[in-house]
Amino acid sequence: MTAETHLFWHEELPFAMSKTSPIIPSLSCTGSLTSSWVPVVWLHSTKALLQVTVEDFEVVCKGLYRALCIREKYMQKSVQRFPRTPSQYLRAIEACVPWYSPLGPVFTPPLKDGQDPFETGNLGEDLGYHVEMKDGVVYIYGDKAAVGRKEPKDLPYPCLEHFVDDMNFLLALIAQGPVKTYAHRRLKFLSSKFQVHEMLNEMEEMKELKNNPHRDFYNCRKVDTHIHAAACMNQKHLLRFIKKSYRVDADRVVYDSKGKQLTLQQLFQQLNLHPYDLTVDSLDVHAGRQTFQRFDKFNAKYNPVGASELRDLYLKTENAINGEYFATIIKEVGSDLEDAKYQYAEPRLSIYGRSAEEWHKLASWFNRHRVYSPNMKWMIQVPRIYDVFRSQKFLPHFGKMLENIFVPVFEATVNPQTHKELSVFLRHITGFDSVDDESKHSGHMFSTKSPKPEQWTSEKNPSYTYYIYYMYANILVLNNLRRQRGMNTFLFRPHCGEAGAITHLLAAFMTADNISHGLNLKKSPVLQYLYFLAQIPIAMSPLSNNSLFLEYAKNPLPDFHQKGLMVSLSTDDPMQFHFTKEPLMEEYAIAAQVFKLSTCDMCEIARNSVLQCGLSHQEKAKFLGESYQEEGPQGNDIRKTNVAQIRMAYRYETWCYELNLIAEGLKAE
Amino acid sequence: MTAETHLFWHEELPFAMSKTSPIIPSLSCTGSLTSSWVPVVWLHSTKALLQVTVEDFEVVCKGLYRALCIREKYMQKSVQRFPRTPSQYLRAIEACVPWYSPLGPVFTPPLKDGQDPFETGNLGEDLGYHVEMKDGVVYIYGDKAAVGRKEPKDLPYPCLEHFVDDMNFLLALIAQGPVKTYAHRRLKFLSSKFQVHEMLNEMEEMKELKNNPHRDFYNCRKVDTHIHAAACMNQKHLLRFIKKSYRVDADRVVYDSKGKQLTLQQLFQQLNLHPYDLTVDSLDVHAGRQTFQRFDKFNAKYNPVGASELRDLYLKTENAINGEYFATIIKEVGSDLEDAKYQYAEPRLSIYGRSAEEWHKLASWFNRHRVYSPNMKWMIQVPRIYDVFRSQKFLPHFGKMLENIFVPVFEATVNPQTHKELSVFLRHITGFDSVDDESKHSGHMFSTKSPKPEQWTSEKNPSYTYYIYYMYANILVLNNLRRQRGMNTFLFRPHCGEAGAITHLLAAFMTADNISHGLNLKKSPVLQYLYFLAQIPIAMSPLSNNSLFLEYAKNPLPDFHQKGLMVSLSTDDPMQFHFTKEPLMEEYAIAAQVFKLSTCDMCEIARNSVLQCGLSHQEKAKFLGESYQEEGPQGNDIRKTNVAQIRMAYRYETWCYELNLIAEGLKAE
Repeated sequence: MTAETHLFWHEELPFAMSKTSPIIPSLSCTGSLTSSWVPVVWLHSTKALLQVTVEDFEVVCKGLYRALCIREKYMQKSVQRFPRTPSQYLRAIEACVPWYSPLGPVFTPPLKDGQDPFETGNLGEDLGYHVEMKDGVVYIYGDKAAVGRKEPKDLPYPCLEHFVDDMNFLLALIAQGPVKTYAHRRLKFLSSKFQVHEMLNEMEEMKELKNNPHRDFYNCRKVDTHIHAAACMNQKHLLRFIKKSYRVDADRVVYDSKGKQLTLQQLFQQLNLHPYDLTVDSLDVHAGRQTFQRFDKFNAKYNPVGASELRDLYLKTENAINGEYFATIIKEVGSDLEDAKYQYAEPRLSIYGRSAEEWHKLASWFNRHRVYSPNMKWMIQVPRIYDVFRSQKFLPHFGKMLENIFVPVFEATVNPQTHKELSVFLRHITGFDSVDDESKHSGHMFSTKSPKPEQWTSEKNPSYTYYIYYMYANILVLNNLRRQRGMNTFLFRPHCGEAGAITHLLAAFMTADNISHGLNLKKSPVLQYLYFLAQIPIAMSPLSNNSLFLEYAKNPLPDFHQKGLMVSLSTDDPMQFHFTKEPLMEEYAIAAQVFKLSTCDMCEIARNSVLQCGLSHQEKAKFLGESYQEEGPQGNDIRKTNVAQIRMAYRYETWCYELNLIAEGLKAE
Repeated sequence: MTAETHLFWHEELPFAMSKTSPIIPSLSCTGSLTSSWVPVVWLHSTKALLQVTVEDFEVVCKGLYRALCIREKYMQKSVQRFPRTPSQYLRAIEACVPWYSPLGPVFTPPLKDGQDPFETGNLGEDLGYHVEMKDGVVYIYGDKAAVGRKEPKDLPYPCLEHFVDDMNFLLALIAQGPVKTYAHRRLKFLSSKFQVHEMLNEMEEMKELKNNPHRDFYNCRKVDTHIHAAACMNQKHLLRFIKKSYRVDADRVVYDSKGKQLTLQQLFQQLNLHPYDLTVDSLDVHAGRQTFQRFDKFNAKYNPVGASELRDLYLKTENAINGEYFATIIKEVGSDLEDAKYQYAEPRLSIYGRSAEEWHKLASWFNRHRVYSPNMKWMIQVPRIYDVFRSQKFLPHFGKMLENIFVPVFEATVNPQTHKELSVFLRHITGFDSVDDESKHSGHMFSTKSPKPEQWTSEKNPSYTYYIYYMYANILVLNNLRRQRGMNTFLFRPHCGEAGAITHLLAAFMTADNISHGLNLKKSPVLQYLYFLAQIPIAMSPLSNNSLFLEYAKNPLPDFHQKGLMVSLSTDDPMQFHFTKEPLMEEYAIAAQVFKLSTCDMCEIARNSVLQCGLSHQEKAKFLGESYQEEGPQGNDIRKTNVAQIRMAYRYETWCYELNLIAEGLKAE
């Protein structure tokens, strides 16, 4: 470890290793930078900066190294993403031949001209495999007999013991004093460094953008990375839709009230309402001051006029009209996005795990109403409400819930011809989300001694980590199976860190491709630093937080963004939180105003949102440039993204510098 | 003065006087309130609350009484507005017969069906009067001979000596210790009282709104009370317009460069630009972090791509194409407002006072391009840049500037047939604004010894107060003349309190119907309390302030609103500050989110904006209800405004209570 580290961008590579190792990410792209860029130059003693002893520093580096290896392993095993740059550093530390798994997630390519999104031609043949869940994880067998022989097909399966070991290691790591000190100081350093960068280069970044023809914030692509389908329209849109439906459909039978068929008119009469009189006030779906710190009250906002009947009719896929209204509203939102052209959204539809029929019903809704928009990528959200179903005796144990969630997907994957609608639907699904109020505490502590899902018969809800592990475990097997079959794979993108224990963020660090919210990274410097090092995308929704958990001005988004965490902006629930016709633009506009984001900041966040999302490789290449998979400035095409190369170089240099410190620490050893 | 004042709304009237005096505003409207309203009940010793001695209290009340009388006098003399309720209290204090001037401002009524906004049929006949300025004020004479005889027509003319006396009284008042203490405590009390009201009645207010059919925040009328015409389009709109103009008009001669005629193509070539490559970044009209506390940099943002040529071509009324592009953009903004239906705007056009021709040129532009929208009311802004013109020798003295600004308007008023275009234009003008960077300090102190405008030959700029007085003085004469003639009158609505000395706010208290900004009321409790007592409307623009003078979260808007000052929301300059297609909705949405405004708050602010603005009586009656001129809940039609009657009652009770305290203080005497 050198006592003095000079960081002259143009003169020498930013890390000592670079001279000896061939695996260092190429920085040749600096040639394309404007010569007037002022690099942030640090003439300092590394030790002084770190303020940890040499011994501690080694311990810290070991810990961080192992943590990154753990994430790398879990991502690669589950066909999710881990960036190339830290992988290369990890290999360098191990003095290994550089190696990077080329096998990333598989996304369904965009439609070709004239192609029908619901076509069933190319689904693949039925394999006739047998699918069975054991200890909460689905196994694939050649046939039923193989179950008895305990000979599942050769696929990667998860190992609970290893997972718990790794988890326990990380639990210890994030509580370790020197690691906490180190991460805290590095994060503080990252903040200050960005501020210096800004003061030195803000005008130069802006100059780059000004010289970039055609592209500005308005026409660079942005993806709403976190939005719930049932709240994807704004309140005014829903109101208009309800009124319109009444004008057209007053005499149509739309509701089944305990066997009694009701027309739309009768339904409203029963509710003592006339749609003509409805306003956004009486609709009452908007979150107000009353919902702050009250997730329960917030959930009730999904009921228009407080009537669950209207939620059933307008915002559900299963009802007397087969979810037609809901499909129509969503398609209207999709069509607005197409009109806006540069905006995309990733709405979540629910699978509850209450019955095995849910998937087929949802797929049937999706196909029947042809719920498709090129500007939408679909996700499945699984609410963590086993306790509710169990107490109502819908489920015998937690294992059954997992079965209901995953077995139909596996079956459609091995026998697509037998499950055509579901197979088509799955082609449009890009990921799984896990949702619920994180502030609810679960007494359970996940360990190897925890009951297996089939044994979890208690009415208590399992812990967040327990849920997350079993979702991850099944997605892992599923993704490997689907990749083998040439089918698209799924990303695991849970809600995480909106509230509750920081262990949630730890579980996601191990299992999730990316997360929504991440507010609680504020509370754990070690996890925050690890999320930075691994560049785990975080879909943040400051307007949602403002109504539920955290005042707008206190949102950590600008802080995370300055430090270099990979954040995107998302709306969560336009119905509850937004006022204007363009909720995503509203989200960006407010962030820009309150956090004083520059155009470069906003375009960087928009670029992050495209990288984070489930759009296909082809779409990403079109929106971000052909080399978007390269990390650092080489991967940026300013003509598409409107992100200054100076910014990209700064980010990459900063990231490599932090990764290199770990390598330095371990080299000393 | 009673030691204990009970404030049971339903049981007794909220002020002791009410039982003896017949002039007290009727509160019979309480009958229409929902019975479940919880009034804020105060069981307290008035003295304890005030924490001032009886002697001080009398002095304070005398001062506040006189201050209100001063404003009342200046408003009534100039055909501007002073509310009825404080007038009644002032008369009660004087033990006079209640008297209230029915002569308010005259607004041009809305067009009848098929009526041409530019018709010249009904302008009135030429009177042949002679118009001449003396000591900075225009006087009207029967003929030129009457000038020599010093026999101006019988109209109210301003008196400088009285004005300075009154001003000096107010200057002393706002610095007086007991008055400051009293105002400070009352304001604090108003804040806390509102918070208590909110806690008690928030849900009840919401219930009222929910039960109010058809009307919600989206379809209650809101007026953008402060917006500059040259920046009334958003940046994206301007960009689109420039690109479109180039597609259509590339070969059209559009620019005169020192006698050389340039086509649009040649102009862009000369600027080394191609419109096809332009982006909002290169357009560079948006205020960023660089403009904070830099009004100079902000002003430069009016030049697209930093080129004054493009400002001349696209954002000016006088140029080689007679301001055609500017007119077209404005009409597009007007048409967007008409589409949005519930939004109105009051754009300002500039009269500089550099030459006497400006008015006729502007009027000619207005008529030629038929710049009309039913959703726009026009205002004239006068930049305070005498010093610039004087140093460039365009003007011999300040009096000439005033002449250029006012004499043409007087001439068109006495001889409309001779000035048809200007007379038509004036029919659409509703007020005057005074604009410039208030943070620039002027050394001058206005007094009776100040040079008269004709003697002001120095290159130094007169003070804010000097400008304001002479604008007010001429508007006073003009309004009385125009009212006599049955013509519409003008409101004086200067920018005031955005920055600079608090004396600005004092001058406006005396002269202005309402103001824009008012941020500095934060700094003077006495003025803030007087603005509350007189309910002077304040058009606030927190997004503009956020880019120029004050961070969003620190904006006093929510504080003023809680205390009961009459605030509205406005955009100031959508081109520089806003991101979305609906700047006014963006302004409301961000305020709602960051300040956590309730629907009732937002609708109250929207209602304030309609009251403040220059829309005609007929339009206000249509938008707010027939009784909108009544104060208190009687003047509110919830079906139109969506403001809860509970809120209105609270506001009115609170206002009367404060006014009554003054009456009580003087009664003791």
